[in-house]
Amino acid sequence: MCIFCKIIEGEIPSTTIYEDDVVKCILDLSQAGVGHTLVIPKKHYANVLEIDSDTFGYAMKIAQKIAKALKKTFNCDGVNILNNCGEAAGQTVFHLHIHVIPRFFNDTVDVKWVDNSSKFDPKNFEELKNKIVANL
Amino acid sequence: MCIFCKIIEGEIPSTTIYEDDVVKCILDLSQAGVGHTLVIPKKHYANVLEIDSDTFGYAMKIAQKIAKALKKTFNCDGVNILNNCGEAAGQTVFHLHIHVIPRFFNDTVDVKWVDNSSKFDPKNFEELKNKIVANL
Repeated sequence: MCIFCKIIEGEIPSTTIYEDDVVKCILDLSQAGVGHTLVIPKKHYANVLEIDSDTFGYAMKIAQKIAKALKKTFNCDGVNILNNCGEAAGQTVFHLHIHVIPRFFNDTVDVKWVDNSSKFDPKNFEELKNKIVANL
Repeated sequence: MCIFCKIIEGEIPSTTIYEDDVVKCILDLSQAGVGHTLVIPKKHYANVLEIDSDTFGYAMKIAQKIAKALKKTFNCDGVNILNNCGEAAGQTVFHLHIHVIPRFFNDTVDVKWVDNSSKFDPKNFEELKNKIVANL
C-alpha cells in the first residue's frame, strides 16, 4: 500500500487539517513554509492524468479553502497551489496530492522558469495550437 | 482594463487553445516549455482568495483537460498545474490564471523548496493545526 494510502487509513500518523469523504488534508512533513498543507484524495490516483475530473475539481476547491485559511492564519504574502504530475515535474509520492504553500517574500521556495519563448517563433503558435486542440 | 481582460475581450490577440463561457485558455507568450498554457477565468478575479469556489473548481477541471492534451501532444515526462497568488508567490498579472506546464527531465523549470521542517518541532504540528483549523 502506498504511503498516502497508509496515512489515509490511519496506519501512519499525520496532522489532519481537514477531512471529509473525498479528501484528507495534512501538514506536509517537509514544510516548505509554516502551514504547508497537502490535499490528498482518499481514493488512490497516481496523478492528474488518472483522476476523474469531478474529484480533481473538488480537491482543488478544498485547496482554495485551505489557501484562504493559511492566509488568515499566517498573514502570508502569497500562496501557491501546485500539483506535480510525474517525477520530471517534482512528484515524489505517486498518489495524487495538491500542495498549498504559504509564501513570504525572500522565502526558500522556487517556482520559476526560464522564458524559452525565443525558441518558439510566434507564427508557429498557430501550428502548436492546432496540434494541442486535436488532442483536447 | 487589465491585460488579461483585454485578451478575453479580444482587444489583445492571443492563441486560444480552448474557450467556453467561463474560461479562456491561451498559450503563454512566455513559454516555460512547448505548449505552456494559461487557464484564465473570463470574469476578473485578482487571485484565488477572491474567486468563488465553483468557478475555481471548474477552471481547475479545465486545467486538467489541458494537461491531458499536452501529455498526448508532446509526450512530456510530466506536467505542473500551478496557481500563484500574490507577487511573493510569483504572480505577475493580477487576474487569476492557472499555469499548465509540460515538463521534461532536465528542462528549465524550477518548482522546488528547501525543507524547513527542522524549524518546526513535530510536537508543535498539533498547535499549528489548531491555529489553521480555527480559520477554516
